Amino acid sequence: MEIKAIHIKVPDGANVILGQAHFIKTAEDLYEALVNGCPCVKFGLAFSEASGPCLIRHEGNDGELVKLAIDALLEIGAGHSFVIFMKNAYPVNFLTALRNVPEMVNIFCATANSLQVLVARSEQGGGIVGVIDGFAPKGVEDEIQKEARKKFLRDIGYKL
Amino acid sequence: MEIKAIHIKVPDGANVILGQAHFIKTAEDLYEALVNGCPCVKFGLAFSEASGPCLIRHEGNDGELVKLAIDALLEIGAGHSFVIFMKNAYPVNFLTALRNVPEMVNIFCATANSLQVLVARSEQGGGIVGVIDGFAPKGVEDEIQKEARKKFLRDIGYKL
Amino acid sequence: MEIKAIHIKVPDGANVILGQAHFIKTAEDLYEALVNGCPCVKFGLAFSEASGPCLIRHEGNDGELVKLAIDALLEIGAGHSFVIFMKNAYPVNFLTALRNVPEMVNIFCATANSLQVLVARSEQGGGIVGVIDGFAPKGVEDEIQKEARKKFLRDIGYKL
Amino acid sequence: MEIKAIHIKVPDGANVILGQAHFIKTAEDLYEALVNGCPCVKFGLAFSEASGPCLIRHEGNDGELVKLAIDALLEIGAGHSFVIFMKNAYPVNFLTALRNVPEMVNIFCATANSLQVLVARSEQGGGIVGVIDGFAPKGVEDEIQKEARKKFLRDIGYKL
Amino acid sequence: MEIKAIHIKVPDGANVILGQAHFIKTAEDLYEALVNGCPCVKFGLAFSEASGPCLIRHEGNDGELVKLAIDALLEIGAGHSFVIFMKNAYPVNFLTALRNVPEMVNIFCATANSLQVLVARSEQGGGIVGVIDGFAPKGVEDEIQKEARKKFLRDIGYKL
Amino acid sequence: MEIKAIHIKVPDGANVILGQAHFIKTAEDLYEALVNGCPCVKFGLAFSEASGPCLIRHEGNDGELVKLAIDALLEIGAGHSFVIFMKNAYPVNFLTALRNVPEMVNIFCATANSLQVLVARSEQGGGIVGVIDGFAPKGVEDEIQKEARKKFLRDIGYKL
Repeated sequence: MEIKAIHIKVPDGANVILGQAHFIKTAEDLYEALVNGCPCVKFGLAFSEASGPCLIRHEGNDGELVKLAIDALLEIGAGHSFVIFMKNAYPVNFLTALRNVPEMVNIFCATANSLQVLVARSEQGGGIVGVIDGFAPKGVEDEIQKEARKKFLRDIGYKL
Repeated sequence: MEIKAIHIKVPDGANVILGQAHFIKTAEDLYEALVNGCPCVKFGLAFSEASGPCLIRHEGNDGELVKLAIDALLEIGAGHSFVIFMKNAYPVNFLTALRNVPEMVNIFCATANSLQVLVARSEQGGGIVGVIDGFAPKGVEDEIQKEARKKFLRDIGYKL
Repeated sequence: MEIKAIHIKVPDGANVILGQAHFIKTAEDLYEALVNGCPCVKFGLAFSEASGPCLIRHEGNDGELVKLAIDALLEIGAGHSFVIFMKNAYPVNFLTALRNVPEMVNIFCATANSLQVLVARSEQGGGIVGVIDGFAPKGVEDEIQKEARKKFLRDIGYKL
Repeated sequence: MEIKAIHIKVPDGANVILGQAHFIKTAEDLYEALVNGCPCVKFGLAFSEASGPCLIRHEGNDGELVKLAIDALLEIGAGHSFVIFMKNAYPVNFLTALRNVPEMVNIFCATANSLQVLVARSEQGGGIVGVIDGFAPKGVEDEIQKEARKKFLRDIGYKL
Repeated sequence: MEIKAIHIKVPDGANVILGQAHFIKTAEDLYEALVNGCPCVKFGLAFSEASGPCLIRHEGNDGELVKLAIDALLEIGAGHSFVIFMKNAYPVNFLTALRNVPEMVNIFCATANSLQVLVARSEQGGGIVGVIDGFAPKGVEDEIQKEARKKFLRDIGYKL
Repeated sequence: MEIKAIHIKVPDGANVILGQAHFIKTAEDLYEALVNGCPCVKFGLAFSEASGPCLIRHEGNDGELVKLAIDALLEIGAGHSFVIFMKNAYPVNFLTALRNVPEMVNIFCATANSLQVLVARSEQGGGIVGVIDGFAPKGVEDEIQKEARKKFLRDIGYKL
């Protein structure tokens, strides 16, 4: 069985979350998790219904981001997978809430990096087996780089 | 390394949840998560012990569903994986509780669809790399289909 | 696309947790989840930054376990992946807290077994697609083995 | 400031959950938490809007239980409090899901016992300060009663 | 033992969350929960250390809101209590994250209403026993008001 | 209705957690939450059954701490309340896990301080309305005390 890498372009200033759920209610519940999470978020989401009409179900408050989510799922072609594109907010603002969506199964990645989604295909359909999220490590941080990392997180206000 | 698709047949009216955990206590704790979740659920579950005797550990309140869970794990052949088959209730009733099981690692799918489990095998053993859950998307919902989706969720009582 | 198995040796008395996150804050937040979880834990952790300098970020309270975590990530070579090695405590003590880390994406395994991490590589980088965690099942527990399992969990104090 | 005890009668076979939330969306979100939790549950719920029209908002799938919830809130008279009456299922099936409702503040009790709700009243309004849930302890279990407790939980299938 | 009502004024456009925790780390962890939750939030928080120097510990990104939080705790005078004032975001955006703070004990209210905090005092110190959050219910919604409630939640984008 | 303050002495090196649950399974489930949380914890716990025989149910791995928990509940005399005394570990290690216990209702405090439990009593029984946890605030931290607080948390290893 072959695995192919599908490139998903993430626009500047956007982030993408990719996951697996199990019910068309997912589209509505992901929408609610996002609007409950942050009043400033702009987003589009799509979910691959995996039986019956097998339609890509979609919601959002930004048409362009909804279109990106639909296009990503059409390329990925995997039943019960979902994609969320967001702006003005970050995955860290939503991941716990997304995991609490009652039909949530799994999250594969949350990233602003160049993303390759690894997909296997059979005669039945497709399945996500993993992601290549950005680049492989090039080295190990030393003490100066460690201090710079901590300072950066404090400069942007995430830590005290 | 080759990946093979193993077909898991889900009986009419049943759902299956497939995941990864890390301790034989999993069998008992999954049992408790299910009975705590819903008084009407019928289920069988099995967990692949991955060291020592390497036995498939199993529990449940419906012998036939327990047998399906054991048979699925024998075919999958992956250490620390688990399978739950259920009737009279749905994965949406249990996924949050399953994630709260203290030795839970990951959930791969929750579905009533035809399921292919993607497994890699080495000289050491097997590992689940993903699933093909139902069918790939065939199109994108339009406004009429979107309204029909929302109406359906309200007709079956999940939304108001 | 080829998948390779990378062997991760887990020292006697240690456990390893392997996962995916999405932000360099992960290094600090995983550290906090571990020290909040258990006063007796000894651990080392590392996270693969996936953009910019692409450094392996690392923290811990035991230098040898930190080194094991860094070495594992250098071999795995997958952006946004993380590894935790621990002693004097067990994954069951931490998995719920790790899932509550706000930038947590996914956990692939938690184990004291011999571990093979399944990695795909493209021209862009690497991605984890799964694990082979210990050994495949060799049989199905019978009633006597089921009673022995329950007695064992009660003898070590996990159940009453 | 005086505290008064308001008796809430719980019908045979029913359970009541009493809590505090902060937004009229509570009525819809509690409804969803209950229908997501268990396909067999019958319930009625009510929430005291605490500003503007200050109406008791209500939902449910059993008219009699909805009426009980409304009547309880009318007697309690405390802004942002809510009451759920349920049959065919138990609080243990829903408490984690209720806590995950995004506007949930607090839960005061979950019980099938005779219940007294302790309410303080000022010129502004009322507030719940606690509950008397069933009866005070009459003694301490001995070893035989401890064994009987464990056996009972196993006989009704909650523990193995 | 007497109970007194302490009025906490909530400025226009602000919300307040009142709770109980158990460790001075609370100040830093609440700060992190808020900045992780929403990039647009403005807030001030304070926590009553209950032993040793018994100082009100405080953090935030808006000096005026920090001052309101400190002033509220000085009036309440209860060990281990905390107060958060926020603008540009709502309690619904943060309550689940606050509950996941490892030293979180309890939340008493989350509101934009006029608030009375009910406090008991002994020779040792003070304790919060409840709140009067806004006003008591004045009636029960009818079918037209129920439809208006649902429409309102959809008009402001919280539900579909 | 009168409220009385019951003093609960917390031994040196110990912490106490006080809460409300709703089912005799609480005793076993709190035990499991504690042993799953931390291999080094010593504890005793007790729960006030509120109907039928109304016995104080108790578990633990340290007889003296179990006795303290029973004695506290006998004095408090409130149906469905529970008490946990622990050594060698801290409430911060367990609070999230305790909240995930499926029959958990509420937590009133977690503290090593001198504790007064505020209890109301009617002809039916008793109910906890709040706690006085340690001492009231004596002042507001200044910048030097703020830096000292942050340094202290880093010196004891909770923050980086």
